[in-house]
Amino acid sequence: MIHPRQGHPISRAAKPRVVVVGAAGYAGAEAVGILLRHGGVALVGLFGSNRHAERAQRFDELFPRYRGWTDLAVRAATVEGILDAAPDAVLLATPHEASHDLAPTLRAKGIVVLDLSAAFRLRDPGAYPAHYGFAHGHTDALAGAVYGLAELNREAIAQADLIAVPGCYPTSVILAMSPIVRAGLLDGTPIIVDSTSGASGAGRTPALKSMLCEVSQQPYGVFSHRHEPEMIQEVGCDVVFTPHLGPYDRGILSTIHAQLRDGVSEQAVRSVLAQQYDHEPFVRVLDAGQWPTVAAVEGTNQCDIALAVDDRRRHLIVSTAIDNLVKGAAGQAVQCLNIRFGLPESWGLARHLSEGAREAALS
Amino acid sequence: MIHPRQGHPISRAAKPRVVVVGAAGYAGAEAVGILLRHGGVALVGLFGSNRHAERAQRFDELFPRYRGWTDLAVRAATVEGILDAAPDAVLLATPHEASHDLAPTLRAKGIVVLDLSAAFRLRDPGAYPAHYGFAHGHTDALAGAVYGLAELNREAIAQADLIAVPGCYPTSVILAMSPIVRAGLLDGTPIIVDSTSGASGAGRTPALKSMLCEVSQQPYGVFSHRHEPEMIQEVGCDVVFTPHLGPYDRGILSTIHAQLRDGVSEQAVRSVLAQQYDHEPFVRVLDAGQWPTVAAVEGTNQCDIALAVDDRRRHLIVSTAIDNLVKGAAGQAVQCLNIRFGLPESWGLARHLSEGAREAALS
Amino acid sequence: MIHPRQGHPISRAAKPRVVVVGAAGYAGAEAVGILLRHGGVALVGLFGSNRHAERAQRFDELFPRYRGWTDLAVRAATVEGILDAAPDAVLLATPHEASHDLAPTLRAKGIVVLDLSAAFRLRDPGAYPAHYGFAHGHTDALAGAVYGLAELNREAIAQADLIAVPGCYPTSVILAMSPIVRAGLLDGTPIIVDSTSGASGAGRTPALKSMLCEVSQQPYGVFSHRHEPEMIQEVGCDVVFTPHLGPYDRGILSTIHAQLRDGVSEQAVRSVLAQQYDHEPFVRVLDAGQWPTVAAVEGTNQCDIALAVDDRRRHLIVSTAIDNLVKGAAGQAVQCLNIRFGLPESWGLARHLSEGAREAALS
Amino acid sequence: MIHPRQGHPISRAAKPRVVVVGAAGYAGAEAVGILLRHGGVALVGLFGSNRHAERAQRFDELFPRYRGWTDLAVRAATVEGILDAAPDAVLLATPHEASHDLAPTLRAKGIVVLDLSAAFRLRDPGAYPAHYGFAHGHTDALAGAVYGLAELNREAIAQADLIAVPGCYPTSVILAMSPIVRAGLLDGTPIIVDSTSGASGAGRTPALKSMLCEVSQQPYGVFSHRHEPEMIQEVGCDVVFTPHLGPYDRGILSTIHAQLRDGVSEQAVRSVLAQQYDHEPFVRVLDAGQWPTVAAVEGTNQCDIALAVDDRRRHLIVSTAIDNLVKGAAGQAVQCLNIRFGLPESWGLARHLSEGAREAALS
Repeated sequence: MIHPRQGHPISRAAKPRVVVVGAAGYAGAEAVGILLRHGGVALVGLFGSNRHAERAQRFDELFPRYRGWTDLAVRAATVEGILDAAPDAVLLATPHEASHDLAPTLRAKGIVVLDLSAAFRLRDPGAYPAHYGFAHGHTDALAGAVYGLAELNREAIAQADLIAVPGCYPTSVILAMSPIVRAGLLDGTPIIVDSTSGASGAGRTPALKSMLCEVSQQPYGVFSHRHEPEMIQEVGCDVVFTPHLGPYDRGILSTIHAQLRDGVSEQAVRSVLAQQYDHEPFVRVLDAGQWPTVAAVEGTNQCDIALAVDDRRRHLIVSTAIDNLVKGAAGQAVQCLNIRFGLPESWGLARHLSEGAREAALS
Repeated sequence: MIHPRQGHPISRAAKPRVVVVGAAGYAGAEAVGILLRHGGVALVGLFGSNRHAERAQRFDELFPRYRGWTDLAVRAATVEGILDAAPDAVLLATPHEASHDLAPTLRAKGIVVLDLSAAFRLRDPGAYPAHYGFAHGHTDALAGAVYGLAELNREAIAQADLIAVPGCYPTSVILAMSPIVRAGLLDGTPIIVDSTSGASGAGRTPALKSMLCEVSQQPYGVFSHRHEPEMIQEVGCDVVFTPHLGPYDRGILSTIHAQLRDGVSEQAVRSVLAQQYDHEPFVRVLDAGQWPTVAAVEGTNQCDIALAVDDRRRHLIVSTAIDNLVKGAAGQAVQCLNIRFGLPESWGLARHLSEGAREAALS
Repeated sequence: MIHPRQGHPISRAAKPRVVVVGAAGYAGAEAVGILLRHGGVALVGLFGSNRHAERAQRFDELFPRYRGWTDLAVRAATVEGILDAAPDAVLLATPHEASHDLAPTLRAKGIVVLDLSAAFRLRDPGAYPAHYGFAHGHTDALAGAVYGLAELNREAIAQADLIAVPGCYPTSVILAMSPIVRAGLLDGTPIIVDSTSGASGAGRTPALKSMLCEVSQQPYGVFSHRHEPEMIQEVGCDVVFTPHLGPYDRGILSTIHAQLRDGVSEQAVRSVLAQQYDHEPFVRVLDAGQWPTVAAVEGTNQCDIALAVDDRRRHLIVSTAIDNLVKGAAGQAVQCLNIRFGLPESWGLARHLSEGAREAALS
Repeated sequence: MIHPRQGHPISRAAKPRVVVVGAAGYAGAEAVGILLRHGGVALVGLFGSNRHAERAQRFDELFPRYRGWTDLAVRAATVEGILDAAPDAVLLATPHEASHDLAPTLRAKGIVVLDLSAAFRLRDPGAYPAHYGFAHGHTDALAGAVYGLAELNREAIAQADLIAVPGCYPTSVILAMSPIVRAGLLDGTPIIVDSTSGASGAGRTPALKSMLCEVSQQPYGVFSHRHEPEMIQEVGCDVVFTPHLGPYDRGILSTIHAQLRDGVSEQAVRSVLAQQYDHEPFVRVLDAGQWPTVAAVEGTNQCDIALAVDDRRRHLIVSTAIDNLVKGAAGQAVQCLNIRFGLPESWGLARHLSEGAREAALS
C-alpha cells in the first residue's frame, strides 16, 4: 500500500500502480490518456468489456490518437486479471451494475477503488431500484463510499478507499449551487436546471441517437433523468433537472435558475463562491458580464461559473461549463486519485499537471 | 391593390407583386428562396444595404445555392427604387431602425408591409428606447400594426396593411404558451424559458462570434434580451428568457418551465393545445413521450410542441422547436402574405406549398 | 401498366403506384420524402428490413421530420407484401444482394424496378464476385438493365423496365467526365479522383465510424473502393478513385485531375460541357473562377460542375458537388421514374418540381 | 545571448525570454498556449495588430480558454515595445509583409527570429512579387534564413538566427514526400496533392467565408495557391496542389498521388520513410491498411503518414494528417525554438512536453 504524501516529489519506485477498467469507452479512454501524461503513476493494466477483450485489442488501435503512447492491450475484465496487475488503485469506468459487483471485491483486496458509475453515489440504497433498476447488495460499501467532488470533499477523499466519482451533469450543478444553498441564500423553491451535453455523454457503443446524421438539439429524459436524485442529495434542495443533447462532441453547459431569499444580493452570492473557489485551480468564477462557453473548458479539468441576479424578481441565473469527460468524469477521477495518494492534485490535468514536477526540475 | 380571396386559384395576371428588402441577409434570402418556389406571387425586386448594393450583385452570386433560379440583382434600398418596382407588398428584412423609417413611407403609398424587424411589434411605444435604443416616431403606424403570428391572429392579418412578423425566439414560446395562459392554467409566477439558437440567428454580417471556430454552446443576453418584452406582451404573463447559442446552423429549441394552478392536469394542457392546433398545418403537438428536435423542423415552417407535467410539483415543461429562419422569420412572413392576399396559406412553404396548385393541376 | 406520356398533365386516376423498399435507410427515406411531395405518383407501400418491420413501425416515427405527412408503416419486405400493394414501380433502396434477388422477381410480374444498389450497374457479370462478393445469377436481367443517369441516358431510361440507378460517387464523376472523354479531349492516362462524402453515405445502421464523436476527415477504401469499376465503365477510361469521409451530414465533393491532349484548351472543355448541359435543369456548369460547394447543392437534385486548366502542364482540374442522397441516390431515382412514366422530369425534385403543376394551376 | 545546450535541465535564470507577435490570431495564440505550458521558457511579451492593441486587451479576454493562465495583455506591435521586453527570441505570427519588415530589424539586435509567415521561406527572392505581392527587400536575410522543418533540417535550425517556419499545407506534404523524392523513387511527373483544411486556417479576422453558416466542403485557390512554390522548392519536384476547405475547426488532411519509377515497390517507399522517421517523436508512419484521420492528430504536434501502392499502375497514394495550428504552425515553431536553444525538443508539445522535466522531478 501507498501512504498518502502531501505534495512531495515522489520516487519512481513509489508510483502508485493504476488499472483502468472500461478503457474502451470514452470516459475510460480519457482516463488512460490523462494517466499516460501523468508521470506520477504507473498505468499497469487496461480492461474492457468482452466485446473488445475477446480480441485483446491494443488501446492505441481502438483510439489511434494514442498511437505510440502505449502498447497496452485492453483485456477482458476479470477479477483475476485485475488482481494479476497488482494495482494500488482501480478506476472503474464501467456500467453501474458492473461497478456494483466489482468494487467490493477489489476493496476486499485492499485496492483503492475510484468508481465513475453511480453505483456508490446515492446514500440511500433504497433509491437504486427506482433510478438504476437494481437492488443494492453492498450497503456497507455504499455507506463507506465518499462522494468524489474534490473541491467540496477533499479531506474525506484523502482518506477514502471507495470514491464515488460524481456524474457529469451533477458536477456542473453541484459545484455552483451547493455552496449557495449551504449559505442559506435561496428561498427553498426548487432549482430549475436546463443542461446541454455533447454526444460523447451517450458513450461509445454505436447507437442511432449518437450518429452524426442524427444528433440534434433536443431535450430528453424529462422528469426522469437518473442524475436528478444525485443533484438533490448533494445540492441540498429540490432540483428540476432537464438534460438536452447538443450537436457537438464534448462539454456540458448548465443554466440554473433559483429564487433568492429577500434581501440577498448578487454580491452576496459572489462572496460565497469567491470564498469557496478563489484558491481552487480548477474552478473559475467569471466576472460580471462574462458567461461560460463549452469551448473554453473543452479538454480541460476546469469548471467555469458565471451568474447574474435580477433584483426585481429575486431571480438568480447561474451558468456553468465543464468538459463532461474530464471534470465530469476522468479528470475528476484522477484529481481524486492524486488527493488520495498524496500527489500534487493537478498532476496529469492539463497545464497544471506538471507545475510541481517542472518546478522541481527547473530549480 | 389586390383584394383578398380565400383559397381560389388565382390567374397569373393577379399575382401579387412582391419586393424583398434586406435580401442579402439570412432571413431576407430565405424569403427570396421561398418566394421563388411559391408560384402564386411575382417577385419583382430585391434590395439590400449599400454594402451589397453598390455592386448591384446578383442574388445568386451572394447565395450560390440559387444559381439559375433568378437573375435578379440586389440593389441599393431606396424608396424610389422600391416604388419603381410597383410592389403590392414589401417584406422588410431590415434592421429595426431601417424598418421604422421605411414602413410608414411604403404604407403611405398603399403598399402592404410585412416587417421582420421589431420596429412594430411592441404595442407600447415607450418600450422602444430601453429595448431597441431609439424613440418610436410612428406611433400611429405602430397602433395599426398587426402582430403576424398566423395561427393566433389569422383574421386580423387578413385585413392588415402593416404586419409585424414575430421574432424567432418569441414564436417558439408564444405558440405554445399563449393558449395555456389564456386558458388560465398557470399560477401566475413567471415562466422560465431557456432557448438555444443556431448561428444563423446572429445574421450574415461577418463577426467573430459567428465564426465556425468560435461558436460554442453558451448563454448570452442574460436578463437583457430584447425579445423578453415581446414574449411578455404576447404570452400574457411574466417571462424570464435566457437565449443560448448552439454550434449549428439553424433552428431554435426552447425549453419552458411553468407552474400549473392546483388541480390542472397534463390532460387539461393537452386539450387546450389540441383545440388550438389540431387543424393547423404548421403546428404539431407531439404525443406524450415524444420530444422535439431541431432536425425535425429544419428547413420547414413547422413548430413542434411537446410537454410533460410533474404532478407532485405541478411543474409543466413545454419544449418547442422551429427553424429560426422559416417559422421564426421568412416562412412566417410568407404565411402572413398568403393570408393577406387570399392565397392558400401554405403556398411556398415546403411540402404544403403546392398542394393547392397541384390539386388544380391534377384534377 | 402505365404508358409513357411526355409532359402532359396526368389525371389523378392514372398516377403510377409506387412502392419503396428499404424505406428505413437514408436513401430510401429520402425517396419517400420526395415522393410525398411529388403529387404525380401514389405512394402505396413502404418496406424495410426485418429489424424495423417486426414492429411495423410508422415511417414518421422512424423519421420524425415527416410527422403528419403520412401514416404509412414500414413493413417486412416480402415479395407477397410488395405485390399486394399492386405497384407499377418499385424503388429498391436495399443491399446489393437483396436487390439482386428481388429485382428479377418483380420484373417477372411486370413491375418497373428502379434499383439504387449496384446489383445491376456493372455490365460484366464477372466483375461481381471480386467487387461485391457474390456471383451474379441474373445475367439476363443484368444485360437488359439500363444505367439510370438521366442526363446521359434519357431515351433508354424512358423505355427501361429495370433501371440501375448510379452510385453517389460515380454520379459526381461521370456527369462531368463522360462527355469530356467521349469528346476525345484527354491523353489516355488515368483520371485521378479525390472525393469527400458526408456521413450519410455510410448508411443509417449504427456503426462506430458514423458516430458524431468519431467522424473525422480521412481517406478510406484506398485502391479498393467498389465504385471504381463503375466509374471506369461509364467514364470510358481508367480512374484512380480515392473516397474520403468528411465531418458533415450530406453531400459529395469530387476533385478530378486529368491530362488534356496537346492543344486542347479550357475553352474546348467548356464547349463540350455547355453543349451537354446548357438545357439541363439539374446540372449547372459554373463560370470560370467559381467553384462548387456542398452547401450549394445540399437537399437538391443539382450537380454543380466547375473546371480550370493549367496550360503549361495541360492539367485539367474539374470539381463537382452533389447531394449524395438526392442526385446521388433518391432524387436520381425519382428523375428516372418521372422519365419512365412520362411525367415532367423535375416533378418532386425541389423547386423545379411543381413548375408544370403550377403552370397548369395558375393558367 | 543564450548558448545552445543539449537536453540538460536548465536553471530558471537561464530560461530564454520569448515574445509572441500576432498573439491575437489563431497561430499566435496557439503558440502562447504552448509556451504557457512549456516550463522551459519565459513568456515576456505579447503583441498584436493595432486593432487589439489599442485596447491593450488581456490575452485571456481574447481567448477565455486561458483565463487564469496569464495576465499578459496584447499590446501594439512596435519595435520599441518588443525590444523593451528584452527577448532572446521572437515568434512572428504576423502577415507576410509585417514579418518581412520586422524580422531584419529584430535580427540586427541579436534576437533570434522564428517567422511563421512566408516572408523568408522561398529561396528565390524573385518569386515574391508573383506569389505574395511584394518585392523582397531583405535578400541577405532571406539568404541566411533556415527552413524550419525540424525533422528534415534539425542541424541547421540549431545554428539558425532566422528560422522560416513552414506553412501548414507544405508541412503536410514535405514531411512525407521529400524523403521519397530524394531517394529517387518517383518517375519525375508532377505530384498531385488534394488537401483539406479546417476553418482555422483562414485566420481569426471575421470574414464571410469563415462563418459557421457558410463553411462547406469546397476547393479554392485552384492553380494559384501561394503554397505551391514552397512545396515544389522543398519536395524537389513539380507539385499540382489544390487546397480545400472542410466544415471543421482544425487539421489538414492531404492525399498525395505520385508515379513510382519502374520496379519500385511499396516496401521500398516504406523503408525510406522508416529510416527517416522511426526515431522521431512527432512523425508516425502507419502500418499498411491504416489511414490517418484529422481527429487523431488534433491538438497535437504529430504528423501521421500512411501509404499504399497500386503495382499495376505504379501509382503511390500517400495520405497525411496534421493539426494546422500545431505541427502546421505554432508547434513547429516551438519545436524549432527548443532545438535552437538547446531545450529538449518536445518540451511544451503535448504529452512529450514534460518528459524531461518530469524525469528530473521524479528521480
